[in-house]
Amino acid sequence: MADDKKKPDIHPALIAALPVADGQLAIGGLPVERLAARVGRTPFYAYDRALVSRRVGELRTHLPEGVHVNYAVKANPMPALAQHLAGLVDGFDVASGGELKMVLDTPMPAGRISFAGPGKTDAELEQAVAAGVTLHVESVTEARRLAAAGQRLGLQPVAAVRVNPDFELKGFGMRMGGGAQQFGIDAEEVPAVLGEMQGLGIDVVGFHIFTGSQNLKAQVLVDAQAAIIDLALRLADGVTGGLRHVNIGGGFGIPYFSSDPRLDLAVVGESLQGPVDKVRAAHPGAEVIVELGRYLVGESGYYVTRVVDRKVSRGQVYLVTDGGLNHHLTASGNLGQVIRRNFPVVIGNRLGAAATGPASVVGPLCTPLDLLADKMDLPDAQVGDLVVILQSGAYGPSASPAGFLGHPPAVEVLV
Amino acid sequence: MADDKKKPDIHPALIAALPVADGQLAIGGLPVERLAARVGRTPFYAYDRALVSRRVGELRTHLPEGVHVNYAVKANPMPALAQHLAGLVDGFDVASGGELKMVLDTPMPAGRISFAGPGKTDAELEQAVAAGVTLHVESVTEARRLAAAGQRLGLQPVAAVRVNPDFELKGFGMRMGGGAQQFGIDAEEVPAVLGEMQGLGIDVVGFHIFTGSQNLKAQVLVDAQAAIIDLALRLADGVTGGLRHVNIGGGFGIPYFSSDPRLDLAVVGESLQGPVDKVRAAHPGAEVIVELGRYLVGESGYYVTRVVDRKVSRGQVYLVTDGGLNHHLTASGNLGQVIRRNFPVVIGNRLGAAATGPASVVGPLCTPLDLLADKMDLPDAQVGDLVVILQSGAYGPSASPAGFLGHPPAVEVLV
Repeated sequence: MADDKKKPDIHPALIAALPVADGQLAIGGLPVERLAARVGRTPFYAYDRALVSRRVGELRTHLPEGVHVNYAVKANPMPALAQHLAGLVDGFDVASGGELKMVLDTPMPAGRISFAGPGKTDAELEQAVAAGVTLHVESVTEARRLAAAGQRLGLQPVAAVRVNPDFELKGFGMRMGGGAQQFGIDAEEVPAVLGEMQGLGIDVVGFHIFTGSQNLKAQVLVDAQAAIIDLALRLADGVTGGLRHVNIGGGFGIPYFSSDPRLDLAVVGESLQGPVDKVRAAHPGAEVIVELGRYLVGESGYYVTRVVDRKVSRGQVYLVTDGGLNHHLTASGNLGQVIRRNFPVVIGNRLGAAATGPASVVGPLCTPLDLLADKMDLPDAQVGDLVVILQSGAYGPSASPAGFLGHPPAVEVLV
Repeated sequence: MADDKKKPDIHPALIAALPVADGQLAIGGLPVERLAARVGRTPFYAYDRALVSRRVGELRTHLPEGVHVNYAVKANPMPALAQHLAGLVDGFDVASGGELKMVLDTPMPAGRISFAGPGKTDAELEQAVAAGVTLHVESVTEARRLAAAGQRLGLQPVAAVRVNPDFELKGFGMRMGGGAQQFGIDAEEVPAVLGEMQGLGIDVVGFHIFTGSQNLKAQVLVDAQAAIIDLALRLADGVTGGLRHVNIGGGFGIPYFSSDPRLDLAVVGESLQGPVDKVRAAHPGAEVIVELGRYLVGESGYYVTRVVDRKVSRGQVYLVTDGGLNHHLTASGNLGQVIRRNFPVVIGNRLGAAATGPASVVGPLCTPLDLLADKMDLPDAQVGDLVVILQSGAYGPSASPAGFLGHPPAVEVLV
């Protein structure tokens, strides 16, 4: 009841959906205290494989038949999670030679892996050509370096052109297409680049067109998908043999904050049927690919920390935990957020307990940035209790400064 | 030329002070191209040991005789740098068991090391007591756990009380004292806590009082130091045997942006004489300690990356480098900054070249957050050129998400 101006800190639907065992949050069927004992230490991240599988299943239900679902590994590169997803999704997208190495250790065939990202090094291009994955080419100079890498190896590179669209769409948490961009080749330059690439002997299979991420409004996604597919069809004349690969990106968001709606997946999926039919009519061999990272894994993850100290400073309660921004930079509000808002946080071993008043959850780092929850209405928590941050399956430990102030890294488990 | 509303991107005094060799930025006396060859790869951080030594010398010139200069390891925990500083400064302050382990490998005596930070674990407390370092106690419960750790080891813990002052000072880049805080014990609670700690057998040697960091205004620091010492003297009655340890923090800032003034060290040093004399009159055995991190090392460091791609998207030039926010989160504007501003950036191998127009420097990460310089007026740079970010000696790789997107970590060298 901290602050009358504040909305409730946690999305009620998130709380209602939490599995409970013995009055505790259940993760992978285990009460969180037992899971902490199984892991052997705190802090840790736990990802629930059943929730990941269920999310992929929901997508299959709503997306048009035959549309491919790819996983964008950058959202969560935990190797065990990639192994699990290799049996569920149709392909992986990687963003570095390091991620490529990791997914080549899964059963996913190389032909179903794509590699996007600006500034690929010659070594990465060679690694990708040798593996036989599809390069998403981000600039004309990269295309030339790719052709040279293929010549050095005596292998034909396979590539799609990443296109920076000639339109912009509003409503994305992060915009990655339209206007001037470091990503992709401006749409108006694509015909010339296609000609040059094919002249250099590159097997051009299609396009990767992506407009932004973390979108919660179905209509924005519907419009984006239609516009992306129209653009791909407009540019397809330059692709010898027609389109085989149309990666329309993702951008499906998940709710973090109490004011966030849940994306209406049924609307997004239903509206995609028309554009997909248009592609198939013109290019029967084309695979339409939706590439998702956060949407597949974000809601399956929990960050679990233990209260090390509880202190009251001038009336304000602080729960000092053994985890902090060194493990979960996003929850601290320090990775790209303009306004800091509280992630959903619960006292995992007191799930049913009523809130008793505002408390701030801070980590052990000697900086005021190390704030995991700011004056949230929480049950009375004590030293030894488990503070759990929900919606932590994407952009967690890999996106955090693990070495900051020299604390041990977080453990990750898949349950 | 880019934007008439913009101030110049780089502080002119910073540029004027840069050492030059063969038309290139010289780091540790080496032209940056040769240094890159010596390191064997980009990206890398280079720290200039001569600049660090010079900075400590400047401090000794201006601070009152006998005032101790301690290094706050969290600013830059590179082991070779700590070894260098061990011969220059009077003590180290660490913020975790990991940092403690590292500095115990230097010649610095344990008695000159202090350990601050909320949420210290029992294991860390035992490690610190066994080492014989001074604990800066952050709460009454931590004091009790410290006493218990001493009993388990059969050793008397040595501690200073970290005090959250009963005043606030404006003008700090980051406020860490006054009001409600996760740091320290509220000043009004200190007398009772001192009594309890000494009753538990802890050897209490004094206080650690710190109000904030990254301050560029001398008068604010002068006022803070005076107020801190007055507070320490007010609280000293409760310290059996009188004060031996008065850590007044640091907070000395360095200029990052063209609008930043340089701190007037002479004024800060001169004004500290009176407060120091007051301490010595009342407590002849007291060491007055100034604890500095960023101020000692921040200006000695360079982050060196190579241009992998140069592209023009709808008229805007992008230099895509092999380094990015995964190595230098602070320069990307994503660690605690409310408004993103460009760090000072130069094309290191074309130091004398005139600016030809605005270019944005981006890293290889597939996210628009990976922006190292936004539309800066730079010389015409090409693939292979070296982009160097100045003022990169503090909160660099250790404060960055090295694993993000799976690229290799940055190398660090001390030259």
